[in-house]
Amino acid sequence: MDRDRLPPTLSPILVEDAVRAALSEDLGRAGDVTTDATIPPEAEATAVVASREDGVLAGLPLAAAAFRAIDPLLQWSTAFADGESVAAGGPVARVSGNARAILAAERVALNFLMRMSGIATYTAQFQARIAHTQARITCTRKTVPGHRAFDKYAVRCGGGSNHRYGLDDAILIKDNHIAVCGGVALAINRARAFAGHLMAIEVEVDNLQQFREALTAHPDAVLLDNMGPELLAEAVAINREDNGGRVKLEASGNVRFETVKAIAESGVDYISTSKITMAAPTLDLGLDIAIG
Amino acid sequence: MDRDRLPPTLSPILVEDAVRAALSEDLGRAGDVTTDATIPPEAEATAVVASREDGVLAGLPLAAAAFRAIDPLLQWSTAFADGESVAAGGPVARVSGNARAILAAERVALNFLMRMSGIATYTAQFQARIAHTQARITCTRKTVPGHRAFDKYAVRCGGGSNHRYGLDDAILIKDNHIAVCGGVALAINRARAFAGHLMAIEVEVDNLQQFREALTAHPDAVLLDNMGPELLAEAVAINREDNGGRVKLEASGNVRFETVKAIAESGVDYISTSKITMAAPTLDLGLDIAIG
Amino acid sequence: MDRDRLPPTLSPILVEDAVRAALSEDLGRAGDVTTDATIPPEAEATAVVASREDGVLAGLPLAAAAFRAIDPLLQWSTAFADGESVAAGGPVARVSGNARAILAAERVALNFLMRMSGIATYTAQFQARIAHTQARITCTRKTVPGHRAFDKYAVRCGGGSNHRYGLDDAILIKDNHIAVCGGVALAINRARAFAGHLMAIEVEVDNLQQFREALTAHPDAVLLDNMGPELLAEAVAINREDNGGRVKLEASGNVRFETVKAIAESGVDYISTSKITMAAPTLDLGLDIAIG
Amino acid sequence: MDRDRLPPTLSPILVEDAVRAALSEDLGRAGDVTTDATIPPEAEATAVVASREDGVLAGLPLAAAAFRAIDPLLQWSTAFADGESVAAGGPVARVSGNARAILAAERVALNFLMRMSGIATYTAQFQARIAHTQARITCTRKTVPGHRAFDKYAVRCGGGSNHRYGLDDAILIKDNHIAVCGGVALAINRARAFAGHLMAIEVEVDNLQQFREALTAHPDAVLLDNMGPELLAEAVAINREDNGGRVKLEASGNVRFETVKAIAESGVDYISTSKITMAAPTLDLGLDIAIG
Amino acid sequence: MDRDRLPPTLSPILVEDAVRAALSEDLGRAGDVTTDATIPPEAEATAVVASREDGVLAGLPLAAAAFRAIDPLLQWSTAFADGESVAAGGPVARVSGNARAILAAERVALNFLMRMSGIATYTAQFQARIAHTQARITCTRKTVPGHRAFDKYAVRCGGGSNHRYGLDDAILIKDNHIAVCGGVALAINRARAFAGHLMAIEVEVDNLQQFREALTAHPDAVLLDNMGPELLAEAVAINREDNGGRVKLEASGNVRFETVKAIAESGVDYISTSKITMAAPTLDLGLDIAIG
Amino acid sequence: MDRDRLPPTLSPILVEDAVRAALSEDLGRAGDVTTDATIPPEAEATAVVASREDGVLAGLPLAAAAFRAIDPLLQWSTAFADGESVAAGGPVARVSGNARAILAAERVALNFLMRMSGIATYTAQFQARIAHTQARITCTRKTVPGHRAFDKYAVRCGGGSNHRYGLDDAILIKDNHIAVCGGVALAINRARAFAGHLMAIEVEVDNLQQFREALTAHPDAVLLDNMGPELLAEAVAINREDNGGRVKLEASGNVRFETVKAIAESGVDYISTSKITMAAPTLDLGLDIAIG
Repeated sequence: MDRDRLPPTLSPILVEDAVRAALSEDLGRAGDVTTDATIPPEAEATAVVASREDGVLAGLPLAAAAFRAIDPLLQWSTAFADGESVAAGGPVARVSGNARAILAAERVALNFLMRMSGIATYTAQFQARIAHTQARITCTRKTVPGHRAFDKYAVRCGGGSNHRYGLDDAILIKDNHIAVCGGVALAINRARAFAGHLMAIEVEVDNLQQFREALTAHPDAVLLDNMGPELLAEAVAINREDNGGRVKLEASGNVRFETVKAIAESGVDYISTSKITMAAPTLDLGLDIAIG
Repeated sequence: MDRDRLPPTLSPILVEDAVRAALSEDLGRAGDVTTDATIPPEAEATAVVASREDGVLAGLPLAAAAFRAIDPLLQWSTAFADGESVAAGGPVARVSGNARAILAAERVALNFLMRMSGIATYTAQFQARIAHTQARITCTRKTVPGHRAFDKYAVRCGGGSNHRYGLDDAILIKDNHIAVCGGVALAINRARAFAGHLMAIEVEVDNLQQFREALTAHPDAVLLDNMGPELLAEAVAINREDNGGRVKLEASGNVRFETVKAIAESGVDYISTSKITMAAPTLDLGLDIAIG
Repeated sequence: MDRDRLPPTLSPILVEDAVRAALSEDLGRAGDVTTDATIPPEAEATAVVASREDGVLAGLPLAAAAFRAIDPLLQWSTAFADGESVAAGGPVARVSGNARAILAAERVALNFLMRMSGIATYTAQFQARIAHTQARITCTRKTVPGHRAFDKYAVRCGGGSNHRYGLDDAILIKDNHIAVCGGVALAINRARAFAGHLMAIEVEVDNLQQFREALTAHPDAVLLDNMGPELLAEAVAINREDNGGRVKLEASGNVRFETVKAIAESGVDYISTSKITMAAPTLDLGLDIAIG
Repeated sequence: MDRDRLPPTLSPILVEDAVRAALSEDLGRAGDVTTDATIPPEAEATAVVASREDGVLAGLPLAAAAFRAIDPLLQWSTAFADGESVAAGGPVARVSGNARAILAAERVALNFLMRMSGIATYTAQFQARIAHTQARITCTRKTVPGHRAFDKYAVRCGGGSNHRYGLDDAILIKDNHIAVCGGVALAINRARAFAGHLMAIEVEVDNLQQFREALTAHPDAVLLDNMGPELLAEAVAINREDNGGRVKLEASGNVRFETVKAIAESGVDYISTSKITMAAPTLDLGLDIAIG
Repeated sequence: MDRDRLPPTLSPILVEDAVRAALSEDLGRAGDVTTDATIPPEAEATAVVASREDGVLAGLPLAAAAFRAIDPLLQWSTAFADGESVAAGGPVARVSGNARAILAAERVALNFLMRMSGIATYTAQFQARIAHTQARITCTRKTVPGHRAFDKYAVRCGGGSNHRYGLDDAILIKDNHIAVCGGVALAINRARAFAGHLMAIEVEVDNLQQFREALTAHPDAVLLDNMGPELLAEAVAINREDNGGRVKLEASGNVRFETVKAIAESGVDYISTSKITMAAPTLDLGLDIAIG
Repeated sequence: MDRDRLPPTLSPILVEDAVRAALSEDLGRAGDVTTDATIPPEAEATAVVASREDGVLAGLPLAAAAFRAIDPLLQWSTAFADGESVAAGGPVARVSGNARAILAAERVALNFLMRMSGIATYTAQFQARIAHTQARITCTRKTVPGHRAFDKYAVRCGGGSNHRYGLDDAILIKDNHIAVCGGVALAINRARAFAGHLMAIEVEVDNLQQFREALTAHPDAVLLDNMGPELLAEAVAINREDNGGRVKLEASGNVRFETVKAIAESGVDYISTSKITMAAPTLDLGLDIAIG
């Protein structure tokens, strides 16, 4: 992962709030009754988080925060940063201190870390298939409710790019909007009149005719939906001719490991898919504890 | 799905809180700027939620709540209840009213519904493979943080059974607990002394020797981890002889579509897997809108 | 208090949230105006929490958290753990540091500590009367809203046992449920079909006929409501004959200091009463401050 | 209860927040599993809240809100208002609609109503013993954390008067404040210089010498702590001579059913005790359900 | 206000949360004690919100929500929409129903409405001075904490344009960022490599040399800080020559009623100032009540 | 600012909650993307908060808390306390540590500090004009929603006095209340019967006849609304004669820099105006950063 793709800093407010909510969910009202029943309160332990498969890490700050939220005295250390690759069997991090605290936080720490690392890994696997092109894998707004900032951050860790974070930070005009406005170009114009000067405008089109009409209204980007590699390549050519390629082109639809290479080789700039956030297998991580 | 497997009522407090948080996440500070830019505030619309594949539904109350939270005047209707099957192409629900409100809530409603229906469908697919046995597919605590109640409810909708909801509502003794206590039976006794009379005790074992020792302490259930069908069948026989099968047996480890049938035919009562909550593909649902 | 009755660890998330809410309630918008008006901001103080009567302590982590929430630099020390007895006049804990901070947190710290210690003490007084039997005093769901985890923890500290924490962590079938199902045994069967394998089932009965019917369906526990010591003893005998006493028996109704001994001597396993959470007198504790 | 003692309107925001938190606490993650297992989702019921002893009601808006929060279609009706008396056996309110919803909300509704009515009833019992005097029973800041607004409202419903609601809405100078300032009068002057024009100032004194010094600084009220009826009567006389009785006198310490009459007959204006909020027995109320 | 400047829909979640928080702040623990003391609970009233000066309205949905939050039965009606002008003396809205409820919500409703209408009015006054140009008045991130969505919405209502809503929805490179990167163009390139395809990039420059360097890296917008009208006009000319005016130009610094016309006539696209959100006088609105 | 006017301690709970909410608002979901794009994660910086004009400081604890909330390792130091004056150009505080953290918190820290210092400065400017009288400038309940505790604290820092903090902490009888009760004196009597002994009662009057009637009922304070200096002086004389000036007199209406001196010289005790909280210009403060 090159320097430009460093993950952004996760807001510590978001991290702490999410971790506390997750711990509340898991501890319920009575807490970790198994541990309270069997482990003396003064027992100490050292635990190692290890990966059981190759992958790209994401979510280390959440895992660390989960342990700290239960007991600020727990010591967390890791040789990894989010976005770095880990090999199967490798130790990822170490946490030591009160045994009850480690056991109480274990599942929450791993649930965040396994899910986010799964997204990063899956994204990296897509991205690896198109590394010989300029295209970037991009997420969508199909994310698990409450996890958008984390899901999109994990996409970054895997080398992907981020689409808008919500309905509010960019304009994406779809068929319904176009239908009401009475045309692609009209919708773009309406959007431009509405938007502040730092709000980008993208429009979704299904075919080259719509695409050509869209270009007349100078959007910042165009989403080419469900168009095969040949049509995409044609769109790329039209775009280069029209504006020197300044308008960004995003392809979506039928994006799979088997298809992504051909899509990327069409010359589009971005390939978006909900699979990386909604269908990424978790990365198998475990916590091995030695209680002293 | 037979009568006994009706999904429990989802707490309306949980539903409303989750839906509002998800809408806040998606609407951000500026709201649905695309819709505001292109759809007149007074426009009316009718939308149909349709399934693009066969599946089992879960999450309809959350989808309905998402629309209502944006505009209490939106009309939501459906012929389905959670836990019912839908065929590809079939309409699932209909919502009508203010067009801006429908568009603003669409993604949140679908994100909940697609994810939960995905869990229900995947669970049902596992369960279908073992329908000729007494075994039930069961979830774990590997769930997406903040979604445990919804994930476990969706497992129910798919005909699966629920393991404990958190660290607090049952005792599950694992290797670390056993190690500290100095033995399986000792750990169970310690747990029994600690627990209230309505708290069940399960213990995890790796082999038949541990299993036999566990039975001497009369747990409510035993988790047989990573034991093949033959060993499982042997455990079932031992259990029947020891206590007439009153102690519940749960198998875990290497649970896949290909392996689940043999595991179930060993005679165990429950087969637990994190796959149904952590690796279920979303059910592909869409919202088609006609703006009046 | 023997080892098996050690109180569980209170979730630090629950503790911190409750303490912050209580401080907000007491400080309001303008804060401790009396102290601000009369005590210089730089004044230091040392305060001693002392008990004015014999009792069992519960809630020390909440008291400590209250002081820390106002000023992380306050020093809290105590020679006691929750569940330990204190004699009248004895110092319980000491806090030192900024005088304004100590005075601002004093009432919240004491309100938690006095109430929870009151519950622990009252529970211990009940339990002491039945120490010669196997019976355990048990709480109910009649607790002050928002304090259930703390109330049930305090019952533990007093040597009592915990009933279910909420509607969700065990099944307790009452007359209304039985009436709709059409019989005790039918209701239990319905419950068993519904429940996961770690959810215990208890049923409430009023007389021996109902009790006998209940036993045919193998519940985990039976609540014998408002039955006198003779009937209870008869139920104990029936239970022993039926299942060797494996089904747990809980007595409720008319539980007072005067009656509890006879109830316990009937041989029941648990005696539940809302008095320990709803009618326990607070333990009289005070804070004596020396401002330097 | 005369017109002037009508309870204030409870803030609907406070009521709704408290009720939702209490329902979350009781329903947990899985909801009312017993009811879900045994009562069909479409069953209807009618329930009557009845009192099993004489008392004064408080908390009806919270009970109503608990049912509404689970199901807005539940119908709640009552012939009573908070502050009115109910006789043993009397029906208090009626709720009808979905049976599952009624059962799910029952305990939360009753926990609020029983506790607040207990406070109102206990306050009324104290107040009845001093009805022949001008004195009013008054609460303190010793209240259950999170319930102050409700506890103080319930005191009102029982005919009592309210002391300050928190550290922020009035000045109450105690011994520590006096010690730092170097004298009663100096502390009052310091407080007056600090306070806005609508912030009343009360000072606590232990003896008549302190009381006389306090009067020289013109406080709005004086708290006479742990002084017997004779000393109190002497203070009343001094106060009348000094300022015509304009300074309000509050007695505290050793306030019990047996002592309150003599204290009141001393002529003090207010008698404060934490017993009414911290030691009031709950009013025994039950909910009888007929499921249709 | 033309069609393109219609205010966006305010998120109902944001509105409800803000209004409930504000009511909690004003009602405190004891509620509206004056009204409770003097107005019978059953009294009805009709109130008219009237403007005491000319202005542009903003915040009507918040005012309506404040009344509804206290009592859902209150009837609110208005002939105005946010963004419309009102003349001094004119009635703005009418609310009728329970008198206590209207009085309890009055101040919160007005505090939102007066402040937001003040921002809209002040923005409109700035915008009116430059109506003969293409320039638009634009807000900044200098807004009152917790009110950003409302402040920026009010700017819209007054005909202004919105800058980014937070640190997260666009890139604005300032001197510190440039210094670390080692140059304007380098910083823009670094930003472009980092940003997703819908994230706009603006850079702040102080002089024409920096401006020319910035243009070489093709930002989406340039903020010309503290440059007088002549320099601004020169920048406009350079920009037109370089890219046909596609890069948006924003002027900031020393923006006052007296200076804004000259700044706008330089040909810049946007003029940003914190005055419209941080120094706008409130619009004087009152509520006249007739209690029946 | 003399000793008696020291600002009260701000509740650390209020401060932390407000600061975290403000940071969430500004950081959104993606955080400070500009800084993440251009500043290496390990960069260190030192920043100086400087004032660009003369003024009175308020809000330093909120600024410090903003930096700490993003990174507890940031070092904050200042030679000033709230309520102290700063001269244009003077350094106010210094913060050093991680550069990304400083930049992420900068705007929130300044937004609180500039606004609160603006209120303090404006209040001080009013107060300076009446320093030769006994009168004190006083705030109202016209404050920005969510900021009341901070606004009123800032008024204190500027040497002003605080009116009630909410509807709940004092009684202020206005014309509507009087109308329903049937007279000023009746309304006061009704209020006195309702109020606890530490709740002050003020009544608003428009003319001397109402004022005289009000005095017959012995309120704690009277608000003389919109009466010119001569009438105010007459009221002061009447008040002195009636009760020796014990009833506090507050003037309101038409309070401006130009009028406040004459109003104060009438002899009233308090002069209230919403201008100090709703129309105070922010104090211009900036943050200059040196990134190491």
